[in-house]
Amino acid sequence: MSRTGNIVIAQGGGPTPVINASLYGVVREATREMGASSKFWGARNGITGVLQNRWIDLRTVSGPLWARIAGTPGSALGSCRKMLSAEEAAQAVSTLREMDVRYFFYIGGNDSMDTALKMNRAASELHYDMACCGIPKTIDNDLPCTDHCPGFGSAARYIAQSAADLGSDIRSLPTPVSILEVMGRDAGWLTAATLLARKDPDDAPHLIYVPEIPLTREKFLKDVRSVYDRLGWVVVAVSEGIRDESGESWGSRRNEKTTDDFGHGLLGDVAASLASLVTSELSLRARSEKPGLLGRSSALMVSSADRREAEEVGAFGFSWTLKAHTGFMASIERRPGPAYRVSYGAVPLDQVADQTRLLPLDYVTESRNDIKTEYRAYAEPLIGGPLAQYARLGAAQSGCANPTNRGR
Amino acid sequence: MSRTGNIVIAQGGGPTPVINASLYGVVREATREMGASSKFWGARNGITGVLQNRWIDLRTVSGPLWARIAGTPGSALGSCRKMLSAEEAAQAVSTLREMDVRYFFYIGGNDSMDTALKMNRAASELHYDMACCGIPKTIDNDLPCTDHCPGFGSAARYIAQSAADLGSDIRSLPTPVSILEVMGRDAGWLTAATLLARKDPDDAPHLIYVPEIPLTREKFLKDVRSVYDRLGWVVVAVSEGIRDESGESWGSRRNEKTTDDFGHGLLGDVAASLASLVTSELSLRARSEKPGLLGRSSALMVSSADRREAEEVGAFGFSWTLKAHTGFMASIERRPGPAYRVSYGAVPLDQVADQTRLLPLDYVTESRNDIKTEYRAYAEPLIGGPLAQYARLGAAQSGCANPTNRGR
Repeated sequence: MSRTGNIVIAQGGGPTPVINASLYGVVREATREMGASSKFWGARNGITGVLQNRWIDLRTVSGPLWARIAGTPGSALGSCRKMLSAEEAAQAVSTLREMDVRYFFYIGGNDSMDTALKMNRAASELHYDMACCGIPKTIDNDLPCTDHCPGFGSAARYIAQSAADLGSDIRSLPTPVSILEVMGRDAGWLTAATLLARKDPDDAPHLIYVPEIPLTREKFLKDVRSVYDRLGWVVVAVSEGIRDESGESWGSRRNEKTTDDFGHGLLGDVAASLASLVTSELSLRARSEKPGLLGRSSALMVSSADRREAEEVGAFGFSWTLKAHTGFMASIERRPGPAYRVSYGAVPLDQVADQTRLLPLDYVTESRNDIKTEYRAYAEPLIGGPLAQYARLGAAQSGCANPTNRGR
Repeated sequence: MSRTGNIVIAQGGGPTPVINASLYGVVREATREMGASSKFWGARNGITGVLQNRWIDLRTVSGPLWARIAGTPGSALGSCRKMLSAEEAAQAVSTLREMDVRYFFYIGGNDSMDTALKMNRAASELHYDMACCGIPKTIDNDLPCTDHCPGFGSAARYIAQSAADLGSDIRSLPTPVSILEVMGRDAGWLTAATLLARKDPDDAPHLIYVPEIPLTREKFLKDVRSVYDRLGWVVVAVSEGIRDESGESWGSRRNEKTTDDFGHGLLGDVAASLASLVTSELSLRARSEKPGLLGRSSALMVSSADRREAEEVGAFGFSWTLKAHTGFMASIERRPGPAYRVSYGAVPLDQVADQTRLLPLDYVTESRNDIKTEYRAYAEPLIGGPLAQYARLGAAQSGCANPTNRGR
């Protein structure tokens, strides 16, 4: 039996390296289930494309092009950061009604789920029979009611590998301190993932600061000093959203404060600020690295598990919607047992829209500057295999303080 | 015939992802040529390890460990940034004489070649028969008398891929401007390599600023505005060492000026400064990315050509030294002809020590904000194969402004 009705898919918020795998997952399943008369439209730049009537005909995309699109970072349809008003939602539903769209998919994070929820409500209020489904995506991993979010595993892999790389570099250098800035405005999931770089207890990163825990200037300097005195080098992983004791962002301290459409503050360069502080207060040469968007756009660092799940969660979202469900977000559930396995589920949009799932404080050590080893069990399966294996010349090679006694 | 005499190897300056391949290249060749009575010592932290008598016995390193070390970023022996005085050079030679060291290898960049030269002179003045050889290494690619420097190809691959990744992300975003900060204090070779990210004329990066060309605030803002008006998004690649019309670094403008042992200024966050300027003067949302040391420590982005050459240049340096040469740096020569092939040579250390080979201005476009396509022929073979291939939904998918006419 071949179904009818048209489909619209859009992408909102910041992209991930696998966001287009989710887009492909929806289209793959739709191609299997829908009749040839159904149209699949992609809206350009998220909900703004619906409001402005800007479309992409997704049925004309060939299989080989889909394979390449699914592996390309950035939102293939374009994105937006738009807070939808009730009036705009009604306007958007009217447009979709004119197009006989019966299935609406929005791929995005917290704010995008808010958009999907508003579309669902507007359709209901206008008595228009259109199913609305959210497909999760965020490197921040801060959507509630899902074990994790597509995009997080790849971003975690990137930042953990980067922390390992940085450790190998700084360990050998006369510049002893580096501060690595990690994305994630409110939730520390991604910053915590730098723990995966640490194989031996003295490996980088030595200090991990998540935005859930305020960081005072005094504590930060004391922590850095302490690690430096013990090891002679320090790598710090810090969230871009780290706050001081008064709740003010460390980043906004030296940047003009501006906000985006959702009222979120735009963050400054936290790591650079902290590096300056180390140099001026501890007289230690310090520098900062801020990969920023590179951490969510590296196709080469995609986690194989993340790539697979991003596509599957899109496909699941479509098939669940087709079973006459509306107003939900597709989710990922981790199945019990020692091996990592997932299944997919659905949660009501009003439970996730505009909600932020913070890193549980149970994962933070009592010292408030590190992540407990328990976090590995959560995060390690998500990064899709081991990081690059690095080696060091060890104790076996350095037993000789004065070789002139044995050198001849 | 098996040779005698002991060997010391050290690494100076900032590491590269292939600096340990050069170390292995020297040891590999030494193992083949030298008798069992010869000792191979690694000095800890460059020339400071010689002065402080801190050694690593490199003959105890197993083959499998070498294979892993050669693929590990960071200097396996540790590094230093030490300006060697004539007295210290004499002291170092005396130490090496006590150890019966007859071959001294220093792997490093401009400053390290200065150290190797001073060691060669001191040995000569003290009438001690010890050959001194420099092995080139620098991601900055700014050593003269060599076609390119080991380490550059891998760093170029990293930054070109990063520019492509960033382009894919920013193209789809409502934040339209990103400034990518690239390492390279004085020479623009690495910043220029971001050109390799550009497949189509409108691809990122749209503006490339090298430190050889002063950049005024007015020109920068005009350039960004112009690209934005044409495309609606802008990715800028800028050297960390970019200077204004008075020769002052853009980075030092907002950072306390400090200098290292060689008198080089420590640079601040140029990209962050430029992004602030775009936001405040053009009212465009702008952000910055600064991968920093990640760009020279990513084992996953190593260029296969660079990896091979780094090892071979070390091996060549050893075998050339064994032929009774001293006071030279091993070099890479590009052989004529359409296919990329290299051979190895030797240049006197006094021609390279403390010299900086800048990017020839012939590679810069007349608009002074871009790199000419001729640079590709130079740089492309060095990055060891194509970058990740990204795709976009194209004109074939977006011909329809109002699908309500065809959607039903």
